[in-house]
Amino acid sequence: MEHTSENCRSNCPINYLLELFGDKWTLLVIRDLMFKEKHYFGEFLQSDEKISTNILANRLQSLEAHGVIAKKMDEKNRSKIIYSLTAKGKDMLPIMLEVTQWSSKYDALTNTPADFQQALKNDKAALTSNLKKGLG
Amino acid sequence: MEHTSENCRSNCPINYLLELFGDKWTLLVIRDLMFKEKHYFGEFLQSDEKISTNILANRLQSLEAHGVIAKKMDEKNRSKIIYSLTAKGKDMLPIMLEVTQWSSKYDALTNTPADFQQALKNDKAALTSNLKKGLG
Repeated sequence: MEHTSENCRSNCPINYLLELFGDKWTLLVIRDLMFKEKHYFGEFLQSDEKISTNILANRLQSLEAHGVIAKKMDEKNRSKIIYSLTAKGKDMLPIMLEVTQWSSKYDALTNTPADFQQALKNDKAALTSNLKKGLG
Repeated sequence: MEHTSENCRSNCPINYLLELFGDKWTLLVIRDLMFKEKHYFGEFLQSDEKISTNILANRLQSLEAHGVIAKKMDEKNRSKIIYSLTAKGKDMLPIMLEVTQWSSKYDALTNTPADFQQALKNDKAALTSNLKKGLG
């Protein structure tokens, strides 16, 4: 899906995020790929938020169309599709880390591990660099 | 609105953002307050994305309930309500800057000024610090 002046509301960078991620579900797929080592349709379905199969299928298609994720046949099991982040998807890491830090600060119920919160607070650059390496 | 285990889908920090901002409009109000010096209902209505009055009223109420914005009577014009970011809202600045940087990189149509993009790339800490001061 091409992002053109005709099909978007404005050329504001915040709006660009909303055109791709302005719903309650899409960002969870990025989270699962980035931090939870999930790569399969069935794995995304099992996350706590209980995304439905039709919403998930729709969001995966949209993310692929916008070049944020890629899919290919799983070499280990050729009947399965494996999803991964593209460079554009991996580049969302700093956004995801800032969101994590903000939410951890303001959500008393946050499940962000204490050591991860500490790393975000004390040495975000090193944490980012390590996580980036992990994403390949 | 209290954020409790009963009314949220999970305690994941990414999900926390989506519980508050998982739609196509809410984040635009933060943008307008943070970067565009807009503080009045009528000003938010005039943004390029053309939010409707009922959606705007609903989102302002939700943001206030979640402690992200505050409203008070405008001292200069006592018939008007003036909106501002709370500390929780102002703390979203690093998220907004990372979104801006990512979108500017991947949206060919971005309207992010070139000098702002350069500042994000070359000295994000100084830019953040300056903008933070401006937010008070």
